Amino acid sequence: MSATRTETDSMGSIEVPAEHYWGAQTQRSIEHFPIGRDTFVWGRTMIRALGLLKLAAVEANAELGTLSLDADQVEAVRRAAREVVDGERDGDFPLVVFQTGSGTQSNMNANEVIANRAIEVLGGTMGSKTPIHPNDHVNRGQSSNDTFPTAMHVAIRLELHERLYGPVEALRDTLDAKAKEYAGLVKVGRTHLQDATPITLGQEISAWVAQLDAALAGVRHAEESLAELAIGGTAVGTGLNTHRDFGSLVAQHLSKLTHLEFRQATNLFAALSAHDALVAVSAALRGLAVAAMKIANDVRWLASGPRNGIGEITIPENEPGSSIMPGKVNPTQSEALTMVCTRVFGNDATVAFAGSQGNFELNVFKPVMAHAVLESARLLGDACGAFDEHCARGIRANAERIDHNLATNLMLVTALNPHIGYDAAAAIAKKAHRDGTTLREAAMASGVAGDDFDAWVVPADMTHPA
Amino acid sequence: MSATRTETDSMGSIEVPAEHYWGAQTQRSIEHFPIGRDTFVWGRTMIRALGLLKLAAVEANAELGTLSLDADQVEAVRRAAREVVDGERDGDFPLVVFQTGSGTQSNMNANEVIANRAIEVLGGTMGSKTPIHPNDHVNRGQSSNDTFPTAMHVAIRLELHERLYGPVEALRDTLDAKAKEYAGLVKVGRTHLQDATPITLGQEISAWVAQLDAALAGVRHAEESLAELAIGGTAVGTGLNTHRDFGSLVAQHLSKLTHLEFRQATNLFAALSAHDALVAVSAALRGLAVAAMKIANDVRWLASGPRNGIGEITIPENEPGSSIMPGKVNPTQSEALTMVCTRVFGNDATVAFAGSQGNFELNVFKPVMAHAVLESARLLGDACGAFDEHCARGIRANAERIDHNLATNLMLVTALNPHIGYDAAAAIAKKAHRDGTTLREAAMASGVAGDDFDAWVVPADMTHPA
Amino acid sequence: MSATRTETDSMGSIEVPAEHYWGAQTQRSIEHFPIGRDTFVWGRTMIRALGLLKLAAVEANAELGTLSLDADQVEAVRRAAREVVDGERDGDFPLVVFQTGSGTQSNMNANEVIANRAIEVLGGTMGSKTPIHPNDHVNRGQSSNDTFPTAMHVAIRLELHERLYGPVEALRDTLDAKAKEYAGLVKVGRTHLQDATPITLGQEISAWVAQLDAALAGVRHAEESLAELAIGGTAVGTGLNTHRDFGSLVAQHLSKLTHLEFRQATNLFAALSAHDALVAVSAALRGLAVAAMKIANDVRWLASGPRNGIGEITIPENEPGSSIMPGKVNPTQSEALTMVCTRVFGNDATVAFAGSQGNFELNVFKPVMAHAVLESARLLGDACGAFDEHCARGIRANAERIDHNLATNLMLVTALNPHIGYDAAAAIAKKAHRDGTTLREAAMASGVAGDDFDAWVVPADMTHPA
Amino acid sequence: MSATRTETDSMGSIEVPAEHYWGAQTQRSIEHFPIGRDTFVWGRTMIRALGLLKLAAVEANAELGTLSLDADQVEAVRRAAREVVDGERDGDFPLVVFQTGSGTQSNMNANEVIANRAIEVLGGTMGSKTPIHPNDHVNRGQSSNDTFPTAMHVAIRLELHERLYGPVEALRDTLDAKAKEYAGLVKVGRTHLQDATPITLGQEISAWVAQLDAALAGVRHAEESLAELAIGGTAVGTGLNTHRDFGSLVAQHLSKLTHLEFRQATNLFAALSAHDALVAVSAALRGLAVAAMKIANDVRWLASGPRNGIGEITIPENEPGSSIMPGKVNPTQSEALTMVCTRVFGNDATVAFAGSQGNFELNVFKPVMAHAVLESARLLGDACGAFDEHCARGIRANAERIDHNLATNLMLVTALNPHIGYDAAAAIAKKAHRDGTTLREAAMASGVAGDDFDAWVVPADMTHPA
Repeated sequence: MSATRTETDSMGSIEVPAEHYWGAQTQRSIEHFPIGRDTFVWGRTMIRALGLLKLAAVEANAELGTLSLDADQVEAVRRAAREVVDGERDGDFPLVVFQTGSGTQSNMNANEVIANRAIEVLGGTMGSKTPIHPNDHVNRGQSSNDTFPTAMHVAIRLELHERLYGPVEALRDTLDAKAKEYAGLVKVGRTHLQDATPITLGQEISAWVAQLDAALAGVRHAEESLAELAIGGTAVGTGLNTHRDFGSLVAQHLSKLTHLEFRQATNLFAALSAHDALVAVSAALRGLAVAAMKIANDVRWLASGPRNGIGEITIPENEPGSSIMPGKVNPTQSEALTMVCTRVFGNDATVAFAGSQGNFELNVFKPVMAHAVLESARLLGDACGAFDEHCARGIRANAERIDHNLATNLMLVTALNPHIGYDAAAAIAKKAHRDGTTLREAAMASGVAGDDFDAWVVPADMTHPA
Repeated sequence: MSATRTETDSMGSIEVPAEHYWGAQTQRSIEHFPIGRDTFVWGRTMIRALGLLKLAAVEANAELGTLSLDADQVEAVRRAAREVVDGERDGDFPLVVFQTGSGTQSNMNANEVIANRAIEVLGGTMGSKTPIHPNDHVNRGQSSNDTFPTAMHVAIRLELHERLYGPVEALRDTLDAKAKEYAGLVKVGRTHLQDATPITLGQEISAWVAQLDAALAGVRHAEESLAELAIGGTAVGTGLNTHRDFGSLVAQHLSKLTHLEFRQATNLFAALSAHDALVAVSAALRGLAVAAMKIANDVRWLASGPRNGIGEITIPENEPGSSIMPGKVNPTQSEALTMVCTRVFGNDATVAFAGSQGNFELNVFKPVMAHAVLESARLLGDACGAFDEHCARGIRANAERIDHNLATNLMLVTALNPHIGYDAAAAIAKKAHRDGTTLREAAMASGVAGDDFDAWVVPADMTHPA
Repeated sequence: MSATRTETDSMGSIEVPAEHYWGAQTQRSIEHFPIGRDTFVWGRTMIRALGLLKLAAVEANAELGTLSLDADQVEAVRRAAREVVDGERDGDFPLVVFQTGSGTQSNMNANEVIANRAIEVLGGTMGSKTPIHPNDHVNRGQSSNDTFPTAMHVAIRLELHERLYGPVEALRDTLDAKAKEYAGLVKVGRTHLQDATPITLGQEISAWVAQLDAALAGVRHAEESLAELAIGGTAVGTGLNTHRDFGSLVAQHLSKLTHLEFRQATNLFAALSAHDALVAVSAALRGLAVAAMKIANDVRWLASGPRNGIGEITIPENEPGSSIMPGKVNPTQSEALTMVCTRVFGNDATVAFAGSQGNFELNVFKPVMAHAVLESARLLGDACGAFDEHCARGIRANAERIDHNLATNLMLVTALNPHIGYDAAAAIAKKAHRDGTTLREAAMASGVAGDDFDAWVVPADMTHPA
Repeated sequence: MSATRTETDSMGSIEVPAEHYWGAQTQRSIEHFPIGRDTFVWGRTMIRALGLLKLAAVEANAELGTLSLDADQVEAVRRAAREVVDGERDGDFPLVVFQTGSGTQSNMNANEVIANRAIEVLGGTMGSKTPIHPNDHVNRGQSSNDTFPTAMHVAIRLELHERLYGPVEALRDTLDAKAKEYAGLVKVGRTHLQDATPITLGQEISAWVAQLDAALAGVRHAEESLAELAIGGTAVGTGLNTHRDFGSLVAQHLSKLTHLEFRQATNLFAALSAHDALVAVSAALRGLAVAAMKIANDVRWLASGPRNGIGEITIPENEPGSSIMPGKVNPTQSEALTMVCTRVFGNDATVAFAGSQGNFELNVFKPVMAHAVLESARLLGDACGAFDEHCARGIRANAERIDHNLATNLMLVTALNPHIGYDAAAAIAKKAHRDGTTLREAAMASGVAGDDFDAWVVPADMTHPA
């Protein structure tokens, strides 16, 4: 049994592992919430965001003169908060997502770790709350109810910027290059899964690029609402026990620390009692998943075969595809990406449900919402990155197959419409289909001159307006 | 302006259209809930269920002697309730789903219509509540809180039996016949959308049958919990103001009237405050949608083409497929069915969300839950019926295409595993793929004797265990 | 049996009811898709949008000279399309949502009705396709694949403008006025459902206004993407068989006809193969539902009682609340609105799922997506309107209850923090709770002077920063 | 840089960390799927299930004589598999959920680890595949397509039995004891959040027990379908390359190893191409979440206050509730449990979506489905356990508050219905409400004799049928 230290809070005293910086409230949370401990401990981004917030808070309090601490003491708190930001204290953040719904225990975890570390720096006794008190100093002018949602916004924006936008834009650029490369390669189009009029492979791919552009714009637009921070609202949004400039000052410091613009929310009551901004970001991420699902599906269907599918493109062969079928290669990146999409759909269902369940001055589903949004951002970023690197960049047209398919495509008949009318054209297509002949043969059998047919039915001409 | 009649309730008096039987509370609901009036007025099944319940209630009250009515009066109520059951009063049920969450107004709608109609039969003055009172007689021993969920259960079971099971079983039987018809037709299997080892078309279709069987079993099992009725619980589940035998007696009468077994719920408090049985039925219907989605997708992919898709089956050509592409035929039944599946998924999300939102003695999302489950049942029944009649029955194997595909399938190589090992077999498949040769050629180039190849690689032998 | 007329299409001839204008393809759809016929026939808005599109198309074709029709013939088509717009032909649009996934049959329904009506106007024979052909003239330069999604965008924008924005803004304004009216009424705040520090009723309501503002802004932003129209893409996005200016010209005419700005989509391939704009609008409507859920829940909880709940506000008594409990009044508008919210969640699940299922050049879940978005817009508009008129406007503070609650609220102790520290304040609150005394008594027993307590603990001062 | 070993597969050779047992395919997966690496590596239960499967497979192959290995070699494979089962090789299972959708790479991970460990035991060279080959021996008669879904079923059943049923049943028993303890404590009932007729606290709690009983029965019923295993189907369900008794023999060994009955699935094609059983289990877990949501909400609302809420029960004070409001105690266990419920809803959305996306012979969303179901089971088990231990067991009636509320409850008026009729009773309740008097006073003012009132209105008598 390892050594312990006695820590106290308003419930009394409790033993805490001596080698850790956390205090009584963190310890109580560990004991009361053994829920999903294997995979639901908060990760780096959320811990970093809490550290950034506490760092910004001590700066703001110092500027406003609202801390009864001397310069060395302030510097000790600052240093302790920076260590949290930098990842040096990650081992002291043991709490899971499924705790109190306000995130109070994680806020107190940050307060306790920073207070104890600052006490240590100042040569004091950990757990003594002297000269640094977790509530009266580190949490000065704050409540979990405004700090935790503030940290949620900071964390999610960091995750979007550092883990999502890059890989998704890289994928978009890869596809855009492919669209340009194959801008002139005419192939059969498909609607209702049935052969349709021609399109170029580049045009087909350009739709994917357009979807990603729109989806990314959607995420970026939703992200804007995360710039509004709850800080300064304290317990119920009124700003009780805080300086009236504290919130905006913290936002300024956070902007400086993260290079992302933040500001205090216009309505602090809504900022505590609802997290509609997270619901919107989650929905935008789902929008990205909708686009990714279409793209990944198209890629694997176009690459299906190799002999008995569509096979109009090839994709990299990364791994043996089967433990029993030798030589089989599968579209595994599409599979991983589409599985991620289904997970993002699920996360979004969680976020929207939880977001609807606030009461009065507080929504107490904060942790589960923040966690699900962070997970969606991370998974989509990771999966788009892998899909880009291990699949999209290696997409190649199978020109032979494309040409063969195009040549047999009955829907080239559509080019006859303006010349002989829809009904006559339909009869020709049906005849060719029934007889198993070429369209040209059927057209000639129906009285269209061969020269006319050749002049009218030019696949490449069918890929743009008349 | 049409003639009106004055009706009263505990809020006072209100004018009601003279040509209708409904009373004050129905009228107030019309005025206060103009929500989705075009498509959300209760349909036949729910009205019929309310009528059945009121009919069963008057029988039970008559037997228990809890009605201060003479025989003629009882008969008048009975007759009025029967008319509701038989659809003669549908025009007097104008209320929409989005009303009070207990369904009180629809329960009162039934009470008012039956009371007024019985009064009319007895030669009284409509609106006088004499000699038949909507609350004291028609609603005797009941509360909306127990009658409405009882009617919900009755309605949903009727819909399942009369509109869902039949068409789904017919579809299942159609597919089962197809599975038997094509039990020996060997074709290429596909995993990850890639060519895989052989399978018969019958085996492929048998999976669909197995899915439908399991899904139907799931719906039937979930339906069992609908046999438990809230009736007898009255306002909060305690059975206040009702005879202790009333609930079970109503259940008996409902069993007789519907030929479906019903009984009073074991725990009446849960029967009012939660509708977990509806959540379970909705989930089971979603399970059916999951199966239908797979089946409808397989059908349209197998029928894709006609020339540049998979094309291993053909399906009926029911309509012109395109307003611009002449002669195009599309898998429209698959499209309608899969669209229904997405709707059923959505309905299920509604039901589960609503089902989680009860408080204390009542869940006040009853109408939206009942409506969504009824809609899912109806849509799945209708769509499976159409899919069966206009698509499944007409599925035909395209033997020529199937044979051609099978002959070129590289995954026949798997048959070599037991003879030359996975790694050597993989090398052969990759060689054939790279060189564009047949598997046999590649095998022989790798040292496999042609005779051995022919003896080992027999597609039909690959469709069952060694 | 009523009289029929023979109509033909590329599948052959078929009998159609003589009294209707529709043609062969509409008739086939009626027969092949008997799915949800009772409630899923397209409503006014979608029919009107199809009419507007066809009107814009004939104008554009006329201007471009791409119609081989004389002026009278063009005028006849124009007149027939206007009749569709104006609702005079609604009875000729019998098709349901669950049809072909491209909406082809509804597009053809419009083409057929307009063609036959124009033929009638011109004195021709209905069904003859002369001198007006449904495909070659009414559908000139179009495909269902571009017209139907164009009509979807038009319909949804019309529904948002005509049925959603107004009522939601009216509700927002009602609440804003209430927030101002009660800006100074101090009451107990509540977090985690537990008593918390004071807030004014106006502040509490202002959060609802802020949520509605943000949600409306979200819908309006998402709506912008609906301005981009698929028209001009024809079958697969390439614009085959249409004039290159046709799409933008149709968009201009639609802008003029609807007073909403429309333009041709930048990427027409994406506009056919994905409907991410609908997914985004649906998500924004879900965002509005999230806000409405919170608001409606707060209202009913604040109004709970009348004696054994929170009871801090009263709401209008609109209907008798119970068929068994006399005098009971329930928060029925909250119930209807929250039920609508669960429905909107479900619709959104449908839309996102369907939106992810496109393949290659076409998403064939168009009708179910359009229908669900239209339904959500309509229901939210209707329900917010009813909630505004029959509930929100009648919200009154119950000042007596509010004052009583505030006076007993232990969380006023928070005002002591800056003076005696968190830990000492906590001890006082716990003592008062344990002993059942007032906070002032407990504070004095703990050594706080009564004068200090009175100076420090001033509820109104606690509703804003220091 | 740490030492590496060269491993090979059909793609060629690759360097693998020397200290690990995995081989080439595992290594490729690590490199190609860096997706959610922090939290999505497979956990103990899935690794154990793979080990159990491989152990059962080697036993079955040994019995059937289908392995070309001697007794020592078989024993080495058996020993290696047992080590995987026992958790000794967890560090050698580095793969994440988002990989190939068949789980092939995790199946190969198990094959490679067991083969290399057996080689080591036998004194061979790791990576040599001699004398134990990962495919030809460890995977003998198997394909990922049948082994992975088999392991999914085994893992989920283990998780249900070992982590879910126990805590949920314990919670159920705790509540059942509370229901009995408070069977006679009469309190105000509440419907629509409004005061309603009396109920006992025990009756109220009994509804929660009934919900849990039904939900557990639902999970257990759904679990039954997991007894059907895909094993023996190999690549596409035909059982190619396996002995026809292999599947049932493996099922027997798994039954023996787990003490849970397993059998080979009736239709192996469905067992590979669909995972409807997982969809059903997920739905059943969602059903449990629906029940838990209601229960946890009721608990926190009943415990709301302490002074300005409902306050009819008290729950344990486990942690300080607020970082700013001293002495505040919150219903944190309800919060954690309801957050878990929203997560379970999300996971279920993932599972159902993924479950609908199979094509032809394979559903390639296996890993994401298995993971989500396992997560839901684990979270619900953990959260119900914590809720039981730290909340439910400590629920105490606040008799003083309960009595006070009951005494003022206007809905006691309902007891007058049988004596004076609904309308007269309603007038009395309304009068008392309007005048702020007791019900008795209002009744007497309306002409009811005081003695009659006292005889008729007996709250305890109102908690059961007449």
